Parts: sequence; C-alpha cells; structure tokens
Amino acid sequence: MDTEVTDTSAAEWSTAGCTIEAALNIMGDRQTFLILREVLTGKRRFSEILELTGLSRQVLSDRLVKLVDQGLLRRHSYQAPGSRPREEYRLTEKGFDLYPVVLALLEWGNRYECGPEGPLIKYEHRDCGAEIHLVPRCDAGHDVTEPRHALPRPGPGARPRVTSPVTNAAR
Amino acid sequence: MDTEVTDTSAAEWSTAGCTIEAALNIMGDRQTFLILREVLTGKRRFSEILELTGLSRQVLSDRLVKLVDQGLLRRHSYQAPGSRPREEYRLTEKGFDLYPVVLALLEWGNRYECGPEGPLIKYEHRDCGAEIHLVPRCDAGHDVTEPRHALPRPGPGARPRVTSPVTNAAR
Repeated sequence: MDTEVTDTSAAEWSTAGCTIEAALNIMGDRQTFLILREVLTGKRRFSEILELTGLSRQVLSDRLVKLVDQGLLRRHSYQAPGSRPREEYRLTEKGFDLYPVVLALLEWGNRYECGPEGPLIKYEHRDCGAEIHLVPRCDAGHDVTEPRHALPRPGPGARPRVTSPVTNAAR
Repeated sequence: MDTEVTDTSAAEWSTAGCTIEAALNIMGDRQTFLILREVLTGKRRFSEILELTGLSRQVLSDRLVKLVDQGLLRRHSYQAPGSRPREEYRLTEKGFDLYPVVLALLEWGNRYECGPEGPLIKYEHRDCGAEIHLVPRCDAGHDVTEPRHALPRPGPGARPRVTSPVTNAAR
C-alpha cells in the first residue's frame, strides 16, 4: 500500500470507545438532530420546538429528557408577566460546543449538497459581521487546509486492535 | 425571548434542503460511518474493510456502491505482481473534504465523551508533527472560539418557513 495519500499508522488500533462514534450517536439520531437544529438557532420552548420539528409530544419529550441527561440541554424556569411558570430548554456549554460540528457539517454540505440558489444558512461573527469558516490549524500555527497533510495518529488512549468481527456485527 | 445567548434571525426560515441534514444523512448511517472511518484511516481493500468493520459482504457491498454513487469514493484497479487484478476504494476530493467534519466530531467527542486514558486518536500536521485543531475564523481574520459570538444568518438560498408539522412528521 503506498503512503502517498494517507498514512496508516493509526490503522491497527482499536476503535472501541471511539469518540467520533459517540458524537455521531448523538447527532446522527434524526429526531435529536431536528431538536438540536431548533435549539441551536434560538428556539427554547417545548411548544415552539414541537411545532417546528413536527415530532409527536411523546417523542419530543423523550428526546429532551435524553438531551438533558446527556448534559447538552438544561431546563430553565421562566415566568412571563401574567402567565404561569414555564420551563424552557437552553444549551449547556457541552451543547454550545457542538457549534464547530454544525459548522463543519454545514461547510461540507454547502460545498457538495447545495441547491442552485446557494446556502440556506451561514454563520457570521457577531462583532464584525464577516462570515465564519473553520480552519484546521496545527499547534505550531500552520493552516492545514489540505486533508492529505493531516495524519491520524494514535493518541494516549489508543490500544492495539483486536479484530472481532462477530462482536462488531452484533453491535 | 432575550437575545443575550442566541440570535434568532435565522429562526423563521425554511429548513427544507438543509445541507447539514444532507451531510448527517450520509455520516449518520452507522454502517456508512464504519466504512468511512476505515477508509479515512487508510484502508482501501474490500477484504480489509470487511474484516475491520465486521459488516456482512452484502451490506458492505451495498454501502460501497452508495458511497461511489454519492461521489465520496472511487474504484481504482490495481494489480500486485503475480496476483489477478483487483479493485480498491479511494477517497475522492468530496470524501477527503469530510476531514474537518471528522476533526470537529473528534474534538467534541474527545472533550466530552473521552475515557480516563485520553483520546484514541489525534491529527498531526504532516510537515511539522504538531497536533491539529479546528479554529472557527471569520473572513476578517478574527478567531471566533466563543460559540455565542457566531450568529446563524439566512444565506442566499434561504426561504421563509412554511410550518408544516404533518409533512415533517411523515418524513
């Protein structure tokens, strides 16, 4: 196998406990994604999220409990003048930190899956209004925009791979 | 609703054709994700991907056809000396461009879903060996690491939202 395109030194390491997979398990659930999309663009109330996602009350309720348990959302009580107290859902820091994930998905999607009229959404810097893009940068300060220049390497938690197709297939 | 945390100006726009969703529809499929993980870390051969993912031949074959159709992988013929010609699967530019998505998922996962022994994997700059991180940066050159300073705004393809819970629920 040539090494021109991708280095393979991370290839023989176990994927058990893969944190990319953990992140995708949360984001990749369609109902959860619909909810996060609404919350990440400013919606907080059950009734509002219910209407905008089109989910059933039961499904929305279940997913919100899960998102609170996972620490992505927190419940916040509020009371409008003359109304009874209500609860809304706010992003925690963990939830807000999905912002680069959303930005990365958005940039890829806008580049390759976009309609002829252009992107539906973009992110702007609050202070200056300029559009935001993700830049891969190394700790030595170099921009690494060429994917072939970014090499996956085993980190401190890496363990040798014990291939177990049966276990994988059963998951 | 206060505007302290999240701006809501992108809130009343249609999500039909959402490119984040399009990207997640590809990445969020568990079998596809397992395949992309192997290919993105250097595996190219059917037999190798078969063993490492633990998928059935039929499922792997179906997903590879889909990934080629979607333009993420391309088939490449090769022939080792003394062997019959074989095909391997290589990332296209569209496939390679998932690298920031993987990096974003990895960084979030490593921050919040990591085991006590630390990350399994990290990305290093090929030229200098320093670790790579994603930096959200605006076109005026400011780093925008604070999620609250990044505002979602309607892009050129944005259309007003026509709320249609029934259609949404049926999807």
